[in-house]
Amino acid sequence: MPNTSVPKTARGAATRARIVDAATELVRARGAANTTIDAVIEASKASKSQVYHYFADKDELVLAVIQRQAECVLGTHEGLLRKLNSLSGLRRWRDAVVALTHQTNCAGGCPLGSLAAELSETPRTRAALAESFARWAGHFEAAFARMQSRAGITSAGDLKELSEAMLASLQGGLLLAQTLRSTRPLELALDMAIDHVAARLGL
Amino acid sequence: MPNTSVPKTARGAATRARIVDAATELVRARGAANTTIDAVIEASKASKSQVYHYFADKDELVLAVIQRQAECVLGTHEGLLRKLNSLSGLRRWRDAVVALTHQTNCAGGCPLGSLAAELSETPRTRAALAESFARWAGHFEAAFARMQSRAGITSAGDLKELSEAMLASLQGGLLLAQTLRSTRPLELALDMAIDHVAARLGL
Repeated sequence: MPNTSVPKTARGAATRARIVDAATELVRARGAANTTIDAVIEASKASKSQVYHYFADKDELVLAVIQRQAECVLGTHEGLLRKLNSLSGLRRWRDAVVALTHQTNCAGGCPLGSLAAELSETPRTRAALAESFARWAGHFEAAFARMQSRAGITSAGDLKELSEAMLASLQGGLLLAQTLRSTRPLELALDMAIDHVAARLGL
Repeated sequence: MPNTSVPKTARGAATRARIVDAATELVRARGAANTTIDAVIEASKASKSQVYHYFADKDELVLAVIQRQAECVLGTHEGLLRKLNSLSGLRRWRDAVVALTHQTNCAGGCPLGSLAAELSETPRTRAALAESFARWAGHFEAAFARMQSRAGITSAGDLKELSEAMLASLQGGLLLAQTLRSTRPLELALDMAIDHVAARLGL
């Protein structure tokens, strides 16, 4: 958790949220390096003293942005993966991810992956991103366990390792999709990972 | 190609190379957004007029950095992949990539992947990075064709698609390795991709 003042009132919470919203949008559009506290103040219509009340410095604000994007991305995937317990369910998740990427014309890449590429050389931001990736992999792991259980298979492979391979395919596929402006590499990477999961789980 | 003045003398070429070297090192350490022309002037010991003689603006310099990193990364992989014509050769390439990543304690990620994550929202830099990724995939494709040919198999799968899936695994694996500071996700992603290649090529 970032070491920031916790809002004591609903109004304070709303102000803090408005600041994080504005910072998240700016970081998403231009990267953390290109986002200044002044730009966040302007975009959020908060005062300088309000921003510094909740965030000691830019690092604190960037940590809050990572937390916000993790909630958003993991929330989406948790929703898609929550009831998943079959290979056909996993294929529907794949189609949903490809459709979401297509909707944005492959622009922007993964919000968490982009932050990871920019902020993995600073210990605190790296730790926050590593934790987010671990939680993300955890959602895959739980889904794979349900798939195994439903198929009546006793645990064979290492589901944690399987979920890391899935997340790597997803991240690599999203990065290539962003750079090549095509969902094709994402589709190929996810299909490869799904075949791998099916083989390992014996499905 | 960046639209820059081409050095006419060996001395000019050396000056230009020194500027690109310094810019590459700065961009690698802190990202393109955090690298100013002034910092490049200071680090390269070149004059302002020399820098602006070869590079009209920062965008031109960043394009030269992409080109330099593409030469470096693709040169390494071309060397590792050039004579590769077997599954065991592909596994040795995997071990070499993991060893290189381990040497740097997983810091920094892929030089081209990091640039792609930062610079894929600007058309000219995106195009240069997309071209670099396509060339990289081309090296895989050629290696897969040699593997098929040596095993006496007539072309079965789409080798271009197979090479994109391999590159996605590599990029995703390197990003997770950087963020988690462990080569394990890279190993898992590459082993998955190698199994996929073996299955598709019928090896």
